[in-house]
Amino acid sequence: MNGAESLVRTLLACGVDTCFTNPGTSEMHFVAALDRIPGIRCVLALFEGVASGAADGYARMADRPAMTLFHCGPGLANALANLHNTRRARSPLVNIVGDQATYQRPLDPPLTADTEGFARPVSHWVRTCAHTPALGKDAAAAVQAALTSPGQTATLILPSDTSWNEGGEVAPPLPMPGYPPLDPHALEQAVRMLRNGEPTLLLLAGRALREKGLHLAAGIAEATGASLMAENTNARMQRGRTRLDIACVPYPVPQAVAALAPYRQIILVGAKVPVGFFAYPGKPSLLHAPGAVLHTLARPEHDLDATLSALAEALGCKPLVPPPLDAATLPETGAPFTLQNIGRTLAALLPEQAVVIDETITCRVPLYAATAHAAPHDWLFMMGGAIGEGLPLATGAAIGAPGRRVVALQADGSALYTVQALWTQAREGLDCTTILLSNRKYAILQDELKNVGAQAGQTAMDMLSLDRPDIGWMRIAEGFGVEAAQASDPRRLADLLRLSFSRPGPFLIEVCL
Amino acid sequence: MNGAESLVRTLLACGVDTCFTNPGTSEMHFVAALDRIPGIRCVLALFEGVASGAADGYARMADRPAMTLFHCGPGLANALANLHNTRRARSPLVNIVGDQATYQRPLDPPLTADTEGFARPVSHWVRTCAHTPALGKDAAAAVQAALTSPGQTATLILPSDTSWNEGGEVAPPLPMPGYPPLDPHALEQAVRMLRNGEPTLLLLAGRALREKGLHLAAGIAEATGASLMAENTNARMQRGRTRLDIACVPYPVPQAVAALAPYRQIILVGAKVPVGFFAYPGKPSLLHAPGAVLHTLARPEHDLDATLSALAEALGCKPLVPPPLDAATLPETGAPFTLQNIGRTLAALLPEQAVVIDETITCRVPLYAATAHAAPHDWLFMMGGAIGEGLPLATGAAIGAPGRRVVALQADGSALYTVQALWTQAREGLDCTTILLSNRKYAILQDELKNVGAQAGQTAMDMLSLDRPDIGWMRIAEGFGVEAAQASDPRRLADLLRLSFSRPGPFLIEVCL
Repeated sequence: MNGAESLVRTLLACGVDTCFTNPGTSEMHFVAALDRIPGIRCVLALFEGVASGAADGYARMADRPAMTLFHCGPGLANALANLHNTRRARSPLVNIVGDQATYQRPLDPPLTADTEGFARPVSHWVRTCAHTPALGKDAAAAVQAALTSPGQTATLILPSDTSWNEGGEVAPPLPMPGYPPLDPHALEQAVRMLRNGEPTLLLLAGRALREKGLHLAAGIAEATGASLMAENTNARMQRGRTRLDIACVPYPVPQAVAALAPYRQIILVGAKVPVGFFAYPGKPSLLHAPGAVLHTLARPEHDLDATLSALAEALGCKPLVPPPLDAATLPETGAPFTLQNIGRTLAALLPEQAVVIDETITCRVPLYAATAHAAPHDWLFMMGGAIGEGLPLATGAAIGAPGRRVVALQADGSALYTVQALWTQAREGLDCTTILLSNRKYAILQDELKNVGAQAGQTAMDMLSLDRPDIGWMRIAEGFGVEAAQASDPRRLADLLRLSFSRPGPFLIEVCL
Repeated sequence: MNGAESLVRTLLACGVDTCFTNPGTSEMHFVAALDRIPGIRCVLALFEGVASGAADGYARMADRPAMTLFHCGPGLANALANLHNTRRARSPLVNIVGDQATYQRPLDPPLTADTEGFARPVSHWVRTCAHTPALGKDAAAAVQAALTSPGQTATLILPSDTSWNEGGEVAPPLPMPGYPPLDPHALEQAVRMLRNGEPTLLLLAGRALREKGLHLAAGIAEATGASLMAENTNARMQRGRTRLDIACVPYPVPQAVAALAPYRQIILVGAKVPVGFFAYPGKPSLLHAPGAVLHTLARPEHDLDATLSALAEALGCKPLVPPPLDAATLPETGAPFTLQNIGRTLAALLPEQAVVIDETITCRVPLYAATAHAAPHDWLFMMGGAIGEGLPLATGAAIGAPGRRVVALQADGSALYTVQALWTQAREGLDCTTILLSNRKYAILQDELKNVGAQAGQTAMDMLSLDRPDIGWMRIAEGFGVEAAQASDPRRLADLLRLSFSRPGPFLIEVCL
C-alpha cells in the first residue's frame, strides 16, 4: 500500500469524510487514492481561501472534523486568512498540504516555500511526514489534535514521495481527547458572586450558545437576577423566537463600554475578557467597568454545558425556556427599504432550522435584532475578523447541514475577497441564498476614517469606495453559475426570498442599499 | 508630525511613489497621511493577492521599488502567494502592514495574528516598528533592503499607535546597495571553459535577458560556439523579431533533460542549477547531463551586464545583434483555431513595446515560439509557480509601463484565483488586453495525474475540471467593469485584438479552446 492510500484509509477510520480542496501536482497520488477508495466527498474550490472557509462552515454545522487538501506552501498561503478565522472559531480541522518530495526540497525549485512557517501561525499542531510508514499514524494524530476541545487546527504536510512510496500503514483512531475537569473552586466563587447582590453579567461563548446552554443560563439568570450576554462574535448561536434572545457585546468601543458599564462582576463562561476589536487613540482597550471583578468560571476548552449544569445545580435552579417572541411579520406595503425592513422580511420568511451566515459588517445590528423573531435557526458569525469568509462559510455549512437552507447575509466589500465560492455552490447544488448587501463602499472604513478625525480627500475615498466601476453583482453571480436578481424594495425582496426558499440550489439577491 | 506622516515623507524621499493596497482600520492614520501629502499614487485592489501581484508587475516594469499596504496578519496572508512569486522574481518591494497597537496586541483581539510569522517566509527583511521616532528610519531601511541586488522583499509592520503618535521623524534615503564584486577566478574559469572545445551552454537569467545582456551573450556564443538558454521562467525577457530568440529550459522533466543532454559544461550567468519543478518517481531531479561541469560565473545578485561585458572583453568578442526574424503574418482564412494560430495572430498584431504576461501554463510553448516573430516586446513569466498572478501582474505592469499595451496570456484555472484584478484594470483605465485561454479544466493536473499512472475516475476528474457549471467569462469580466468578447476562430481573434489595441483601457477576449 502506498502512503497516499494509508492516509485515505486512516482518515476514513478516524471519521473524516469531507475534503475541501484545490489540489496540485504534488497531491496527484493522494488524489488518485481518494478516487480509488470511496468514502471521502471531495469538494473543489476555485481558490484555497474558499476551501478553508468552507471547511470552517462544515465543521461548525457538522460538529465533526473538516478536512482540506492544498498544494505546497503557496496553496496553503491562499487559505491562511480563513484558517485564521477557523482557529478563532475553534473549529476542528485537518489540513493536508502536499509538498515537494523530501529529496527535491533542498534543490529549491520555484514553488518551494517554508510551508511549516506558513502553517504555524494558524495551527495548533503542525507536522511534516518524515517517511511513508509514519503517515497513517501522523494522520491519526492530526485528527486527535483537531478534536481536542474546543476544536483545533492540525496541519499535516505531505512530501510527495511519502505519498507515492510503498510501505503505508493504516493507523487506528487515537482516543478522543476529553474536556479538562471543571475547577470546583471556580464554581464556588461563581455561586458566591451570583448571591452577593452585586450587578453581575454571565458572558457566554462557544457551546454555551446552543439551545441547551442558553436555557440553562436563562434559568440561572432568572433565579439570580444576573444578566446574560454573548461575545461580540460567536461561532454558532442557536436563536429564533422560541429561544433565548441574547445580546452580543457591541463592536464599537463606546457602545461596548456602555453595555458593560452596569456590571460590577463578570463571570466568563467560555468567554475571554472583552476587549476592543482595535485600539483607538484615547479610548480604552478593556471594555468592562473600571474596578469590575472578572471571574473565569470556564475556559473555552471546558465542557460549557456541564459547567452551566453544575452552576444551575449549585444554585438550585432549573433550565428556563423563555416565552416565545412575537413572530415576525412582513413590512407593510410601501415600507422603505431600510435594514430594519430587510431584517423583518427575512425574519418573516426564514425557514425553520435555517443557517444564517453573518458577514454583515456595518449592517449587523438591525438584521440581528429583527431575526430574533424568526423561526428557530443557527446564526454563524464571522470569527477572527478576516473578511472574506461569508460565502465560503455558507458553502461549507450547506454541506455540513444537508436539508437546511443556508442564508448568507453578506456585505459587498467582503464578498469580493472569495466570490469564487459561488461556483462551488452552483457545482454542488447547495441550498444557499445569498443576500448581498450592496452599498458600494467599505462602509466600516469610511466610519473608521471619520473616527480618527481625518478629512476624507479624494485619495482616501478612492481607497475606501467600491464604485467606478460599480460591481455588477448579477453578472458575476451568473458568471459563476448562480442565478441572481436585484431587490430595491421589501416586497421584491420577499418575492425573491420565497422563490429561492421554494426550490433547491443557490441564488443570489443583490439588495441595493 | 505623527508617525504616519513621517512614513509617507520618508517613502517619498526614498523614491517610492506607487502603493498597491487594500487597507483596513489599523491603517486609517496612514491612509489619512497618504491623502494629506500628495505624491504617492494609491491603487485599490479588491483582494490583497491582487495588490501583491500588481506590485510585482509594477516593480518588474518600472525597475523601481513597489509598495503595498495591507491590514494586519490576515490581510498580509491574503497577499502571500504572490509575495512568494515576487520573491522568486526578485522584484524590489516594500510591504507596509498595519497592525494592532502595541498595547492592544497582548489582549489578543480577534484579528491579532503572528504577522511577523506570516511575513518571514516571503521576506528578506522583516521589522516591526517599535515606536514612532524610529518609523522614518525603519522605512528608509526597508527601501534599502528592497533595493539590495537583485531585488528583495522588505516587510515593515506598523502597530497603529506608532502611526498615530506624535514624534515622527523623516529619514533621508540610505545609500543604494551596490553589486557584489565579480570574482576574477570565476571569470577566468569561464574563459577556459569556453575555449576548451567542450559543448558548453551559457544559462542566462535575470537582467542578462534584457536586450543588452542578450546581445552580449549572442556575441560570446558566436565567437566561442557556445549555446545560450534561459531559465524555465524569467522575470522579464526582452524579445521579438529584432532581438535574440532564446529558448528556455523546458518544464517537463524529459524534455528538459533532452535539451540539456548535449552540454558537458554549463556556465551559470545569474541562473541557478537547473532542477525539475517537481519530483516524479523514477525521474531525475537535476536536469543536466550526468558528469557535466556546472560553473557559477555570476550569482543572481551580481551585475549580470557587467559580467557579460567582462566575459566578452576577456574573450575579445563584441555584442551581436542577430539578423531580424521574419515578421509574423496572420494565419490564412479558415485556418484552425490552434494555439499555433492563436500565437501567430497575436504575433502579427502585437504593438511595438508591448508587455506580455505569461500565465499560459500548458499553452506556453506554441505561443512563446510564435511571438519570437512579433514586434519587440517584454515577456514576463510567472515566477515562483504560485498560480493566480497573471491578471495582477498585468495590472501592475500597466502602471509601471504607462503608454505600453499589456497583453495577458492567461490560463482559465489560474485566472480564477485573482479575477478581482479586472476591476482594478477598469478603475484605473489600464491598457490591459487579456487573452483568456479557456479550456475549462486544470489541464496541467490532468496531465500530471496521467504521469503518476493513475486511472482518472469521477472523483479525481471532478477535482481537475472547471465545468459543471462552465465559467461565464464574459459575464464575470463585465461584472468587474471590463468589456469582453469571445473568439473561436483566428479571424475573430484578430478583429478583437485590433479593436482592443486601437483604444485605451482593458478588454478581455475569451479564447474558446
